[in-house]
Amino acid sequence: MISHKPTPVLYSQYKETLQKIADVKTAYAVLQWDQETYLPPKGAEGRGRQMATLSEIAHNMGTAIDLGDLLNELNSRDDLAAINKKNVSLSLEEYNKIRRFSPAFVRQMSETVSKSYHAWIDARRKNDFNYFEPQLQQLVELKKQEADILGYEQHPYNALLNEYEKGANVQMLDKIFSDIKSPLQELFIELQRLPQADTSFLHQFFPKDQQWKWGQEIARILGFDFSSGRQDIAEHPFSTSFNTSDVRITTRIDENDFANMTWSTIHEVGHALYEQGLPPEEYGLPVGEYASLSVHESQSRLWENCVCRGLPFWKYYFPLLKTYFPDQFKNIEVVQFVQAINKIAPSLIRTESDELTYHFHVMIRYELEKKLIGGELPVKDIPAYWNQEYKSLLGVNVPDDNNGCLQDVHWSHGSFGYFATYSLGSFYAAQFWKQAQLEIPQMMQKIENEGDTGVLLGWLRKKVHPHGKFYTSEELCKQITGSGLESKVFVDYLRQKMVSLNIGA
Amino acid sequence: MISHKPTPVLYSQYKETLQKIADVKTAYAVLQWDQETYLPPKGAEGRGRQMATLSEIAHNMGTAIDLGDLLNELNSRDDLAAINKKNVSLSLEEYNKIRRFSPAFVRQMSETVSKSYHAWIDARRKNDFNYFEPQLQQLVELKKQEADILGYEQHPYNALLNEYEKGANVQMLDKIFSDIKSPLQELFIELQRLPQADTSFLHQFFPKDQQWKWGQEIARILGFDFSSGRQDIAEHPFSTSFNTSDVRITTRIDENDFANMTWSTIHEVGHALYEQGLPPEEYGLPVGEYASLSVHESQSRLWENCVCRGLPFWKYYFPLLKTYFPDQFKNIEVVQFVQAINKIAPSLIRTESDELTYHFHVMIRYELEKKLIGGELPVKDIPAYWNQEYKSLLGVNVPDDNNGCLQDVHWSHGSFGYFATYSLGSFYAAQFWKQAQLEIPQMMQKIENEGDTGVLLGWLRKKVHPHGKFYTSEELCKQITGSGLESKVFVDYLRQKMVSLNIGA
Repeated sequence: MISHKPTPVLYSQYKETLQKIADVKTAYAVLQWDQETYLPPKGAEGRGRQMATLSEIAHNMGTAIDLGDLLNELNSRDDLAAINKKNVSLSLEEYNKIRRFSPAFVRQMSETVSKSYHAWIDARRKNDFNYFEPQLQQLVELKKQEADILGYEQHPYNALLNEYEKGANVQMLDKIFSDIKSPLQELFIELQRLPQADTSFLHQFFPKDQQWKWGQEIARILGFDFSSGRQDIAEHPFSTSFNTSDVRITTRIDENDFANMTWSTIHEVGHALYEQGLPPEEYGLPVGEYASLSVHESQSRLWENCVCRGLPFWKYYFPLLKTYFPDQFKNIEVVQFVQAINKIAPSLIRTESDELTYHFHVMIRYELEKKLIGGELPVKDIPAYWNQEYKSLLGVNVPDDNNGCLQDVHWSHGSFGYFATYSLGSFYAAQFWKQAQLEIPQMMQKIENEGDTGVLLGWLRKKVHPHGKFYTSEELCKQITGSGLESKVFVDYLRQKMVSLNIGA
Repeated sequence: MISHKPTPVLYSQYKETLQKIADVKTAYAVLQWDQETYLPPKGAEGRGRQMATLSEIAHNMGTAIDLGDLLNELNSRDDLAAINKKNVSLSLEEYNKIRRFSPAFVRQMSETVSKSYHAWIDARRKNDFNYFEPQLQQLVELKKQEADILGYEQHPYNALLNEYEKGANVQMLDKIFSDIKSPLQELFIELQRLPQADTSFLHQFFPKDQQWKWGQEIARILGFDFSSGRQDIAEHPFSTSFNTSDVRITTRIDENDFANMTWSTIHEVGHALYEQGLPPEEYGLPVGEYASLSVHESQSRLWENCVCRGLPFWKYYFPLLKTYFPDQFKNIEVVQFVQAINKIAPSLIRTESDELTYHFHVMIRYELEKKLIGGELPVKDIPAYWNQEYKSLLGVNVPDDNNGCLQDVHWSHGSFGYFATYSLGSFYAAQFWKQAQLEIPQMMQKIENEGDTGVLLGWLRKKVHPHGKFYTSEELCKQITGSGLESKVFVDYLRQKMVSLNIGA
């Protein structure tokens, strides 16, 4: 009888089961990594088979009755240490959630997603949303069903938001975005009075091999541990982690755009540093995983924007960069360089946008998804809605669907409720950045004079990384900064940087 | 009731199960490939975990009671097509075999192998067999138990031989090796009358990048399909296959040895061409797999030795090779080149030996293993036995254990009975090569005048590759050449080549 077994015995059994499930899931992640980096073209079909089978196995293991009994029993015990208790309760929550979905629903979702992805590819090729619409329609209906199965209060979109960011809901996000919208718009107007940065020198020819070497160099500088990870080339940059000792990032190289590879590498390194800093002894258990998508994004944005778009960092490292590209940066001063990499300008494409207008892109998607899932916006009206919002919020005319509502892959993957975490991540990043400066008075000097960002990494390795999922985003933020998310900190950070750099929009 | 279901329904069920098991096994193979090519150093432990879990899952799937019932029922049906019948009967055989091993035995074997491998590494580092001996002792005992579990007639070594080469046994191999020993020794003496080849020019500096490009070129020339496979660098060259559309080879590059990378690439391409040519519709089923290790080796040896150590091939391709290494081969004639790559000389290391003396290396290992498993040779006496046999058969003095009985990794992996398949592969290769020349009279001219080896590949793609495991090695050989293995063909082939090239030993 399970109820007679001592708690440590049951906990070991639980841990062993969860770690085996993790082995299968991370094996899946290896197959996926290989798919994006080295898979020969004709290998795609076989890879699909392998991944579907591993995914089915992991699902079966994660929904086994025995596991449920074990989790319920352990959850009723009162002699578990705090971390173990948290692991068990989060695992039970996850177990109960995935048990709600019938195999038939899971299969239908997976098939619909697969078809939607192909429809999206087709629509992109034809630059016409109409080719995506019927599949997207089906997918949205299915996501509404998913929301019903998951359960929600007030708004069905809450159920989906919660999938990516625990505790997130429409009420909270409406407030965050409405709080920040006007300040960002005001800042934008304010910055229009300042001179615009010249970015032309970033678009000279930067040879591939040299960029690759420079990318490895900057990853090393920021503390990416190449003995516990690697970097490769992929079409779309991403980071993935199999365990804390095997964290991989990818990048792509555009020889006519210096910023592309460099900041995508820094962004992925930020994610990877987090993964390399999670507690290895909690492998496969909730506390061994990242807190939330927004906290993950806070780590990438912190390095990408706060550190590596800052003047102090480049005061130290610009001379090193010049050794990689002596001709390209011959007549460029460090301030010019930092002005260029911070240029603010409304644009059509989210992933190419600047630190300020980025959030307008997110807000449009957030509102659109909310209306879509809430049934206020029919799928067929997406392009018109999209174009109108881009005109109104960013002041740009959307010329076609590829530069409009077809630009992101997320919906075709069935990801509704994801985009908001990108903004939350930036806001948390600004708060962590401010706090780090307060707690480590010598930090900015260390960065500027010695190029030493290790002091920040050390701080994150104490404050953020080792806690895994023990705290929610908000709990973590309070624990570190004394208060929950405050988007104002982000606006202040941005204003101060742009004004001190004298850069306009 | 399973017995009421129509055969096609049961067969589909069987196929689906087997293919899912294959998905897990090939996922394991991807993890292994990654481990040998790109795994960051600290990722080894986590990778070990993942692989152990997948291996356990595959074992559980492969020994499930339901599968046994299904196989037994299908095996009793008489309305299966010949290929399907063969699949079922081979699957049932495999099922019954792995069911014989208790989970405890499997675990003990896997742990002992793991310890043995580490002990071997340690012994290699210390160049002292004594550090390997205690673990090897345990492993040999366990392999004897394995032989008992598998069951055998006459000699326990038969059970182990049969694991690598179905139907192989001591009686048959004793005869094959005794048949060929004297002819090979006589040929060796005969060749001593001819002048020795000069190989010094193969040991100039051959830059890494240029060798890499050349390796890709020769793989393409031989017909390796890079859209269904790839080549990477690894410490030990190998080939692996996840399905016919994803077959991968690896190589290593020694900048001071031209032959090393080139012939290891050709060898692995030979294996890979076979895998790329197996019947894709039989994925995961026995008939979708290679016939046997010896047939696999026949494919690598055929390309490595018969084709790519032949004068006709280089008459066409030597000018192309010269464009890759113009300085290194400036004053070298094609005949000199082919003489050099065929040089015969007794040596200490199997993997570096020539086409003739290679088989003496195998014979020594075969006899040694037979005595070891038969209980006639104690583990502690291996070095003395080894050194004495090398002196007697190859005429070389073994200076130390690394150059002697510690040179191969096989035993530390628990592989006893494997080496013989290397020789069988060479012998089959010579027979296939002779047969192809008979059946395609224009083949040698095509190779010499047009560099067209596709005609041979086409022949193999009809005669060997598409049959998978439908025939045993001997059945396949009879079907193709009209008779079973005849080692004399190999001796004739070798004599003719060496004499016509005027190369001595």
